[in-house]
Amino acid sequence: MSVEKVNVAEKLALFSEHWSPKVVGELNGQHVKLVKFQGEFVWHHHDDEDEMFLVVDGRFRMEFRDRSVEIEAGEFIVVPHGVEHRPVADSEVSVMLFEPASTVNTGSAGGAVTAELESI
Amino acid sequence: MSVEKVNVAEKLALFSEHWSPKVVGELNGQHVKLVKFQGEFVWHHHDDEDEMFLVVDGRFRMEFRDRSVEIEAGEFIVVPHGVEHRPVADSEVSVMLFEPASTVNTGSAGGAVTAELESI
Repeated sequence: MSVEKVNVAEKLALFSEHWSPKVVGELNGQHVKLVKFQGEFVWHHHDDEDEMFLVVDGRFRMEFRDRSVEIEAGEFIVVPHGVEHRPVADSEVSVMLFEPASTVNTGSAGGAVTAELESI
Repeated sequence: MSVEKVNVAEKLALFSEHWSPKVVGELNGQHVKLVKFQGEFVWHHHDDEDEMFLVVDGRFRMEFRDRSVEIEAGEFIVVPHGVEHRPVADSEVSVMLFEPASTVNTGSAGGAVTAELESI
């Protein structure tokens, strides 16, 4: 049987680049990803996918067009599909994402910071 | 806009019963739940749903028919649908679950410990 546990800190130690989510689990057509943020991402939305951001270590600010929400370790936020958002991290933050396997990091925006998915 | 963050520790402080998952988030037809385990649960499987168990605080043992896996804070395991399992916690553990909204805690087994879903 191939049911193995995953240690989040061990997976986070395997990469250092920012804004490039790594797949660490899959279930029910959803991906579990780990990502490190630092700086400002691009404004974007996802036409079809809701996204969950669970902060593992550090803190970041989720900006919406009309306000922003500070999220720190032990907190999460669900951004519904269609809602424009931009994560901003003044210093590095480690985040666990839950989202459909179809999700592209830049959603509607595309462009240079669109990441290729990699499993670790 | 109703996008609010959730603080996991604050939600965990709202209940004390064991084996009764509370819904704290929903996205893409999946539920995010918090649950406290203590003691032995019933053997069961889920015909259609994969389940993710992310330990928030403490540790527990996921028993399978041929082995068991110890999972502690900062670790998770995905149990695929169809795989018989039984969580066992020697002392209280707090766990985040990620699974389809259709999931019943006892799966195939049913019985007295089947929990009604409640959102907190």
